[in-house]
Amino acid sequence: MIDISDRIRNKAYMSRVTTAEEAAKLIHPDDIVAVSGFTPAGYPKAVPLALAKRIEREHFQITLYAGASIGDEIDGALARVHGISRRFSYHTNKDLRREINDGSVAYADYHVSVFAQMLREGFMKRPDIVVVEAAAITKEGNLIPTTSVGTTPAMIDVCQKVVVEINVTQPLSLEGMHDVYDIPNPPFRVPIPIVHTGDRIGKPYITCGWDKIVAIVPCDIPDAPRSFKPVDDAGRKMGNLIVQFFKDEVAKGRLPEHLLPLQSGVGSVANAVIQGLAKSDFEHLSIFTEVLQDGMFTLIDAGKVDAVSTASISASPEGLKHFYEHIDEYRKKIVIRPQEISNNPEVIRRIGAIAMNTAIEFDIYGQVNSTHICGSRLMNGIGGSGDFARAGYLTIFFTSSTAKNGAISSVVPMCSHVDHTEHDVDVLCTEQGIADLRGLSPVERARTIIANCAHPDYRDQLTDYLNRAIAATGSQHEPQLLKEALSWQQRYLETGSMK
Amino acid sequence: MIDISDRIRNKAYMSRVTTAEEAAKLIHPDDIVAVSGFTPAGYPKAVPLALAKRIEREHFQITLYAGASIGDEIDGALARVHGISRRFSYHTNKDLRREINDGSVAYADYHVSVFAQMLREGFMKRPDIVVVEAAAITKEGNLIPTTSVGTTPAMIDVCQKVVVEINVTQPLSLEGMHDVYDIPNPPFRVPIPIVHTGDRIGKPYITCGWDKIVAIVPCDIPDAPRSFKPVDDAGRKMGNLIVQFFKDEVAKGRLPEHLLPLQSGVGSVANAVIQGLAKSDFEHLSIFTEVLQDGMFTLIDAGKVDAVSTASISASPEGLKHFYEHIDEYRKKIVIRPQEISNNPEVIRRIGAIAMNTAIEFDIYGQVNSTHICGSRLMNGIGGSGDFARAGYLTIFFTSSTAKNGAISSVVPMCSHVDHTEHDVDVLCTEQGIADLRGLSPVERARTIIANCAHPDYRDQLTDYLNRAIAATGSQHEPQLLKEALSWQQRYLETGSMK
Repeated sequence: MIDISDRIRNKAYMSRVTTAEEAAKLIHPDDIVAVSGFTPAGYPKAVPLALAKRIEREHFQITLYAGASIGDEIDGALARVHGISRRFSYHTNKDLRREINDGSVAYADYHVSVFAQMLREGFMKRPDIVVVEAAAITKEGNLIPTTSVGTTPAMIDVCQKVVVEINVTQPLSLEGMHDVYDIPNPPFRVPIPIVHTGDRIGKPYITCGWDKIVAIVPCDIPDAPRSFKPVDDAGRKMGNLIVQFFKDEVAKGRLPEHLLPLQSGVGSVANAVIQGLAKSDFEHLSIFTEVLQDGMFTLIDAGKVDAVSTASISASPEGLKHFYEHIDEYRKKIVIRPQEISNNPEVIRRIGAIAMNTAIEFDIYGQVNSTHICGSRLMNGIGGSGDFARAGYLTIFFTSSTAKNGAISSVVPMCSHVDHTEHDVDVLCTEQGIADLRGLSPVERARTIIANCAHPDYRDQLTDYLNRAIAATGSQHEPQLLKEALSWQQRYLETGSMK
Repeated sequence: MIDISDRIRNKAYMSRVTTAEEAAKLIHPDDIVAVSGFTPAGYPKAVPLALAKRIEREHFQITLYAGASIGDEIDGALARVHGISRRFSYHTNKDLRREINDGSVAYADYHVSVFAQMLREGFMKRPDIVVVEAAAITKEGNLIPTTSVGTTPAMIDVCQKVVVEINVTQPLSLEGMHDVYDIPNPPFRVPIPIVHTGDRIGKPYITCGWDKIVAIVPCDIPDAPRSFKPVDDAGRKMGNLIVQFFKDEVAKGRLPEHLLPLQSGVGSVANAVIQGLAKSDFEHLSIFTEVLQDGMFTLIDAGKVDAVSTASISASPEGLKHFYEHIDEYRKKIVIRPQEISNNPEVIRRIGAIAMNTAIEFDIYGQVNSTHICGSRLMNGIGGSGDFARAGYLTIFFTSSTAKNGAISSVVPMCSHVDHTEHDVDVLCTEQGIADLRGLSPVERARTIIANCAHPDYRDQLTDYLNRAIAATGSQHEPQLLKEALSWQQRYLETGSMK
């Protein structure tokens, strides 16, 4: 058996240590089960895998709450045995995606900043049981988190039954990196006292207490991080464009010399931008974001970064290894926060974060689709992009101008699903160029987006649509041809190409 | 000449008093002119009217900035002489609307909370001249605002040339009702110290200084407030539904006994809801909003309200008269703030405002259109609805289930324009009923919205669309038939009916 005696700091409770199989029996059919984790980082593994085996034998389902995406040991393993009936509030798992898109799983995605609040408010039903990963349990029964904090504080706050997986692959040197600050429900809220990215305002542990801990399970399965696609040519171009854009903004006095705290979404383009910054002259940068990917380590290693705030360490396998090896250096600069703080609009608006996120498609007027392919098919969910896009100082979305070898134009007449409105989008970027939409009317935006961001193969087709829409509506404010607005996506569904 | 000597508290500057015609000459062709005002309240009148006359003779255009909608003396008078080439960031004027929808005026609407920030950031070009209404000028050259604060502090902050209209119809007893708190650009921001609705954190005047004041113009034209349509049967039903919904939420422990600060948009339905609250058992309510309409006075007069925070007094002619007559009572409860505070996501999220706003249409999945008729034609703009919908504790949109005598269903398969996404919408309300969307998947939302909110005449048609979309997509997450999704609005354009 895995030795976790040094991680349970009150020996009176060693008797609660049990196996994953025994702990999984505490979960009943139709239970609402809430789990820790934010991206494949800091989520429980042993109990969910045992639960999946049990469900395979006994055929039942649960409702699953996770503050964000988690590892395949939960979403994947449970989806493959059809064990999930309902799932909130963000995911990235391919097997779960299949179940969501064939009607087997009821799913809804919420902004990263609001899920904890929805639990505390009672807007979502309270979980019956919470399963969390921890590095250690303090004498008082409080939890030292591992590579994420996520929604765990709120989940434990609203539930009386907690199963703790002590993961021995998570180093104890993580202790002290977390900053857990609880937000009460209104009318009892006061200002969140973060003024600078690295400010510490809370405790290094999640409040729990021995009363709630019903089982402790040793685990030696490491986080299973995703590998990133290497940065491709388009990504490199976008990275360079955005770095140049930042330089120009500084020159124009619209951004300070050391920029403002950077938020950067998940993915290889986001990584490329960060790599571009690592090679630039920028210094004393700060990062206020929800996921820390490999690029950020490069940036920190290059001596470019003063402080990092995140909700999780979400690196590649190599990146995570690198992080663990140099944790004593990184802990000086990195603070890991609950997602209701990392993504809180109060803090984001105050510090003036620069929001950089990936789009699936955007339209000629600047509406952005982040979630659905051709209107109906869910990709992942909105995640934290909306929190940052709405409250940020400067909001940038990027995507390659085409997909599927040119068969799809990422710039379309009308988005088939809207997640971020034109009111929230300052700048769009593809490998073709940057469209700065600030202060432009819808038709001016359209001409700029087509000229600067659309792939040359689609520019004439888009301009033709725009001109006909202007003519047909008599130059109305945001001219659309309702009969044709979604025809590009429809054509792709029917013919495999938007051309 | 109108005597304003008691309103200029430094006699050394009386020489700057001039006529509206002379002051209008300070505005040059192609200038960017910024004006005070928020709704038809606290905006300059004499200089814009003189400017419109000059433009009629001399044929030139200006760019016009206003933080929100303003009176017909500006938007209407200037639009009628084709004097506006570009206009930000919100309007409600019918003549301006016509110019926007025939391509004559380049217009873009921004969230109420961000326009001041966009000016201070330099994202929008700086105004060449600012024209503001004031009740008085202090000894130091600072301005006592009138019935709104709007974006005036930021406009003056970024401009060196200010024309002040002293409006003698605005009582000097307005002094002390305003709370002007300036927000610096990041990285220099600190928490906005509002914890309770009525907290006063700033100054009772707008900082300006004599150096910037280039002309002072006496004015005796009163605010020209809008009349509201009387509350109709549908409005009354929605008011009652929402009051009952609040009672149920309190009973379920999801809202405190005295509710949370209420935000209520412009319009007769909003007024009906407030009237419903006035007749209810609720007490010690608080109002955190951007516009104070007649209904709010009823609520205050009924002794139901402890504190009110607003960006303007936007009553009907009768309501405004009532306000002026009882100003000594109202000033004990009302604080008038700059719009970047009244709509700030930091404060809204903290105090947990209940956001109640009107929709033009919403779709079966809960996306909301607040701005465009049939996709292309602008109605007004997004205003503050997005600030409150996104950051609020509970977000409600309401609209009558049909318009144009039943020819239009306000519930459609897909919105022809999206301003608020499904991620931001908790509750929808029509006179048919309430759809509580919290914790529902998209298809569950659709069934609930059709059953509870759609007009009976359209329910079968909507259900038929939903069922066919589910079948055609194989139960994808948010099933849409792209070929048909916008056909309802298209049918209305072609036949005059969605049936």
